Amino acid sequence: MAAAVAGEEEVTNRQVILKRYVTGCPTVEDMEVVTGTLRLAVPPGSPAVLVKNLYLSCDPYMRTRMTKHAVPSFVPDYVPGKVLDNCGVSKVVLSGHPDFKPGDLLWGVTGWEEYTLIPNPVFCHMINHREFPLSYYTGVLGVPGLTAYAGLFEVAKAKKGEHVFVSAAAGAVGQIVGQLAKLTGCYVVGSAGSDHKVNLLKAKFGFDDAFNYKKELDLNAALKRCFPHGIDVYFENVGGAMLDAVLDNMRHRGRVAVCGQVSQYNLERPDSVDLFRLVGKHIRMEGFLVSEYAGEYRRRFEEEMARYLTEGKVVCVEDVAEGIEAAPAALVGLFAGRNVGKQVVVVARE
Amino acid sequence: MAAAVAGEEEVTNRQVILKRYVTGCPTVEDMEVVTGTLRLAVPPGSPAVLVKNLYLSCDPYMRTRMTKHAVPSFVPDYVPGKVLDNCGVSKVVLSGHPDFKPGDLLWGVTGWEEYTLIPNPVFCHMINHREFPLSYYTGVLGVPGLTAYAGLFEVAKAKKGEHVFVSAAAGAVGQIVGQLAKLTGCYVVGSAGSDHKVNLLKAKFGFDDAFNYKKELDLNAALKRCFPHGIDVYFENVGGAMLDAVLDNMRHRGRVAVCGQVSQYNLERPDSVDLFRLVGKHIRMEGFLVSEYAGEYRRRFEEEMARYLTEGKVVCVEDVAEGIEAAPAALVGLFAGRNVGKQVVVVARE
Repeated sequence: MAAAVAGEEEVTNRQVILKRYVTGCPTVEDMEVVTGTLRLAVPPGSPAVLVKNLYLSCDPYMRTRMTKHAVPSFVPDYVPGKVLDNCGVSKVVLSGHPDFKPGDLLWGVTGWEEYTLIPNPVFCHMINHREFPLSYYTGVLGVPGLTAYAGLFEVAKAKKGEHVFVSAAAGAVGQIVGQLAKLTGCYVVGSAGSDHKVNLLKAKFGFDDAFNYKKELDLNAALKRCFPHGIDVYFENVGGAMLDAVLDNMRHRGRVAVCGQVSQYNLERPDSVDLFRLVGKHIRMEGFLVSEYAGEYRRRFEEEMARYLTEGKVVCVEDVAEGIEAAPAALVGLFAGRNVGKQVVVVARE
Repeated sequence: MAAAVAGEEEVTNRQVILKRYVTGCPTVEDMEVVTGTLRLAVPPGSPAVLVKNLYLSCDPYMRTRMTKHAVPSFVPDYVPGKVLDNCGVSKVVLSGHPDFKPGDLLWGVTGWEEYTLIPNPVFCHMINHREFPLSYYTGVLGVPGLTAYAGLFEVAKAKKGEHVFVSAAAGAVGQIVGQLAKLTGCYVVGSAGSDHKVNLLKAKFGFDDAFNYKKELDLNAALKRCFPHGIDVYFENVGGAMLDAVLDNMRHRGRVAVCGQVSQYNLERPDSVDLFRLVGKHIRMEGFLVSEYAGEYRRRFEEEMARYLTEGKVVCVEDVAEGIEAAPAALVGLFAGRNVGKQVVVVARE
C-alpha cells in the first residue's frame, strides 16, 4: 500500500471532532472521537499528500480556537462537527507532491485523526534527525522548541548575564526556554504548578531557582525573593496575575516575550493588568508567532537543537498519552496542569 | 534683589499642596492653595537656585502621584501637606550654581508655588529660544514636545507611508505627535472628546481624519472606518477600551508606544485588555519616559522643533489658566477633558 501512487483502498479513520464551541474550561465532552472511513487516494494532479499520523501535539493555544471569534484570530477557529488540527508527526502514505514520497516522515500541521489528506503540504517539513525519538518533533525539535528559541533570542533578545523568568516553565516551551537561557549564561528562574515540576526544573533542567505558584500567597513576594535585583526578560506563558506581578519586578528596559497566556484562555473577560507600568521602566512587551521564523531560520534552529540534544546540553520531558481516544483528555488536562512536560498523543508508533 | 547672591528678604509664597491621597477622580478639594513665606536665600556653598515660577504645566500623569504606591513608581508620590511639583518655566532669582545666574530663564522641574528653592537644578535647562512664548517650554518645546518626538521616532519608529493613530490627540502630546507624523509622510487619525477638538485636529493640526470617541457607539467600528487596512503605529495616551479596540485593528508588526493611559488613572482596578492579541500579529507594545531622551538628544529636538515652529510646520494650541489659585481646577479639568490643547497655568508673566 505504502508505495502506491493512488489506491482505492479504504481505511477506517478515527477522528477527534469539536462537538460545540467552548465556554469556560474545555471538557472532554466538548470533543468526540468518531469513526469514519477514508479512501486512500490523492486527487490526480494535485500536490496533496495523504499521511498516517503518528504523534499529535497538545498545545494550550488550541483552546483559543474552540471559541468563535468575531474578529478573526491568527489561526482559523475550529468548526463544530469538523476534525481538529494542529502540529504532529506523520508518515507519508501517498504523495502528489514532488518533495515528498511514501515512507517519508514529516512534521507539521495535520488532523487529529489517524489518516489525513493534506491538500497542500506547505506547513510540512521533512524530519532530518531520525536518531531522536520521533515525538521530539512535536516538542524540542518542533514548534515548541522553535518557539522557545525564537522567542528568547529574537523577541526577548536575552543576553549573557541577564535575569530571566519563565512561567509554565515545565511545559513544552518553558523547559526549552530555561535551558537555552542557561546555555546563554543567564540567571534563570521558573514557575510551575506542582512541587514535582519545581523539582524537575531545578534537578533536570538546571534552572537556578523555581517556585510552585500555587503555594505562594503573594506572587510579587515570590518574584522579589528570586529576583532581588529584578527581571530583565520575562518569557510569558500564563498572563493574568503572574504578568501583573512580573511587571512590578521588571528592570529598566526589561522585555516581555508574549508566547501564550494559558491562564486567560478560559475566561470570558481577561484579568486586568496595570499596563501603565510599562511606562516607568521602559518595558517592551512583544508578541510573536513561530510561523514568522521559517525557512533558513528554522533549519538553523533544528541543527543547533539537534547538536544540543546529542551533546546532552538540552534534555526534554514528555508526557505521552496512548491512542487517539486519549487525545481529548490530554488536551483538557493542560488547563489543570496535569501534564508533566510536553503533552503528546501517540496515534501509532509507525 | 535679582542680582544678589544671597539675601535676607522674605516674600509671601502661595503654594498648591496635596491635602490628602486621592481615590477615584481628583477634585479641587484634594488640593489646597496655602500662603507661606520664603526667605530669599540659597544655602552658602550649595548648587541651589532660587526661582520665581512663571508657567506651570498640568499633566495627567500627576494623578498617578496622588496615590500612595506600595511599589515605588518612576516618580515619587506626592506627600499630603507638601507642595506639588512638575515641569514649568521659571526665572532665576538667586543662584549658587555656576551654570545659572539671576535673570536666566529655565524650564524643568519646579514647585507648584510662586517661588521655589531648587536644591540641585539637574532637571533644569536654559531656554534657548526666547523668540517664542515662554509657555511653549511647558508644551511643544518642553516635555510634551520631547515626549511626542521621542515616542514617535525612537519608540514607535514611525516611517513614511505608515498609518498612525493617536488618542487624546488634541492634548499637549497628541497634537505634536500628529503633526510630526504628518511631516514624516504618515496617514494620521486622532481621537478626542468633543466635536470642537475633532475640528481642531483636522483644520488646525492637519490630521487626515479624526473622531469624537464619546459619540462612537463602537470604537472598533470607528477605527475600522478610519483604518480599513489597519494601524501600524498607535500612540497610546488613554488605555482601557480604546487600547482594546486598537489591538483588534493593528497590522502585523504594529507598534504601540505607551505614553500614558489617562482613562485608567482614576480607577481602582484597570480595565481588562486582551493581551493575547499581541501574539497573533506580532505587536510590540513599549512604554517610555521622556527622561531617557536627555542631553544631546534633547538639544537636537529643541532646535528641530524651533525650526518647525518658525517655518509654521508645527503649530500649537494652549489652554491657559490665570494665577496659581486656578491650578487645582486646571489639573482636575484634564480628567473631564475640559482643556483644549496644552493645559498651562500662568503664575506670573515675568
